[in-house]
Amino acid sequence: MMTETSAEVLAERASFRAELLDSGLLVHGGADGLYQRSGEFEGVVRGVEALASRAAEGNGGARYYFPPIMAMTDFERTDYLRSFPDLIGAIEVFTGGDAEHAAMLFAAEEGRDWSESLSLADLALCSAACHPLYGRLTGELPAGGARYEVQGYCFRHEPSVDPVRMQSFRQHEFVYVGEPDAARDHRDRWLERGFELLASLGLDVQVEEANDPFFGRAGRLLAANQRATALKFEITCPVSSTQVRTAITSANCHESHFGESFDIRTADGAPAHSACIGFGLERIALALVRRYGTDVARWPLAVRDALQQ
Amino acid sequence: MMTETSAEVLAERASFRAELLDSGLLVHGGADGLYQRSGEFEGVVRGVEALASRAAEGNGGARYYFPPIMAMTDFERTDYLRSFPDLIGAIEVFTGGDAEHAAMLFAAEEGRDWSESLSLADLALCSAACHPLYGRLTGELPAGGARYEVQGYCFRHEPSVDPVRMQSFRQHEFVYVGEPDAARDHRDRWLERGFELLASLGLDVQVEEANDPFFGRAGRLLAANQRATALKFEITCPVSSTQVRTAITSANCHESHFGESFDIRTADGAPAHSACIGFGLERIALALVRRYGTDVARWPLAVRDALQQ
Repeated sequence: MMTETSAEVLAERASFRAELLDSGLLVHGGADGLYQRSGEFEGVVRGVEALASRAAEGNGGARYYFPPIMAMTDFERTDYLRSFPDLIGAIEVFTGGDAEHAAMLFAAEEGRDWSESLSLADLALCSAACHPLYGRLTGELPAGGARYEVQGYCFRHEPSVDPVRMQSFRQHEFVYVGEPDAARDHRDRWLERGFELLASLGLDVQVEEANDPFFGRAGRLLAANQRATALKFEITCPVSSTQVRTAITSANCHESHFGESFDIRTADGAPAHSACIGFGLERIALALVRRYGTDVARWPLAVRDALQQ
Repeated sequence: MMTETSAEVLAERASFRAELLDSGLLVHGGADGLYQRSGEFEGVVRGVEALASRAAEGNGGARYYFPPIMAMTDFERTDYLRSFPDLIGAIEVFTGGDAEHAAMLFAAEEGRDWSESLSLADLALCSAACHPLYGRLTGELPAGGARYEVQGYCFRHEPSVDPVRMQSFRQHEFVYVGEPDAARDHRDRWLERGFELLASLGLDVQVEEANDPFFGRAGRLLAANQRATALKFEITCPVSSTQVRTAITSANCHESHFGESFDIRTADGAPAHSACIGFGLERIALALVRRYGTDVARWPLAVRDALQQ
């Protein structure tokens, strides 16, 4: 089996990236994993979003679009700092006066590190689309729990030349917060629904057990435990490589993780369980480009119709 | 005349914000100036976007959607650090191992500043929607210059309880890069077009000369010069206050600022001039809410039609 880093896989990824940039669908953003989206690419992303929304058949729950940043107090409560410190993005701002400004500019002009003049803001880049939701739910949920459809730009500090691994990308999620059984049921039903949706676009999808990339030595144990308890599944598809599949959607049970961190309780006072499915909008768009080519106007009519192109 | 900070104006703003949060159109994001958008609010934003796109009548140029972050090398070349240091957002990331991670978590658990474990990334939050464009244009432009339609989330570190002053918001811009006369013409024609577009929605708009909020002592001179040379105009409207109007769109000549910083040249080798109009999508949506109320379903049919609601 080909591995992530075999020469053949790396070459396939570089070739797909070159194809994307040559076609103009994406434009290089000046840093690895940073891409500007053409209007045509954005149209596909919005088509995928609308398709996912329709799959909820009116039962997706309240819909929210989150800005790409969130309150640091909420971010700290997600425990992302413990589990994925290497992926986070904190935000620094300048709060000095004229003198500090002059010193900062002088450092910048000399090519020195000018960040000493900055201080940490009470804000962080969102790491997952559903993170900003939980801080709003502290308290008691209605009986039966609640459903939400949320979208936002996520940041992951993992610069890569693989075009599917963007540092800034969007997730479109369907989240349930409430009873343990209903949370697992939400995850399982959406996993099936997500699979059908992606297969209906002609994508060569598979469901696979998975784990998050927990950090460090302690992380290996967390990852093994996540697999042993079947908390995470991914829908994978060949995108930037024919050999190594890419997760384009993931469906997760969080158990009481967010319920406890954010003090979200069910009607009977227990910490709420939660679950979500996250459609990776850019990754799904890229899977479609890999499948049908860079000329969106020549994609099959059924696919174009499904994406309202 | 009422000033920005008179008690009456502050009370009006607090009242409009309460109305927005009570209606559920916006949800408090856990920090001042940070809001989660309901699906209904986002629908209005997208309607405004589509309306602006149509106003270009097919001549808006290549369309790009930018992620909320950009390469630091490009950010530094915008000169935003010199002119608006108080508004910027730099990004810090963690690049340590297990030991540094343990130290960072220990600091966080004790409520101490854990940002010492972080280091500056080669990325910054975008301050204006057109900033990521210029780095792509280094070199010689085609004869007659080029036009672009761009959108992106912008960050401005100016926490406020005034709902029109968001820390994270979107601009939808039409940019011209090329000859000096054509740049001014682009700005002037779009200013007129933008005014007509916003007036057609029934908004009580005015065109006003304006200046950017340049920082510090040196900034006062820059602001005065910007006004003296009529580089910046704003389309204003009553939004969060009946007394103090809010800029909902701005139209700017940059002269050769970006052309020189990014080494963008016209066909005859001169530094390119540039100009843009930026529609403040959230501010226009808020102006409509102020004008027609929080129940979007009951807005006048002509307005709903124009916004494809």
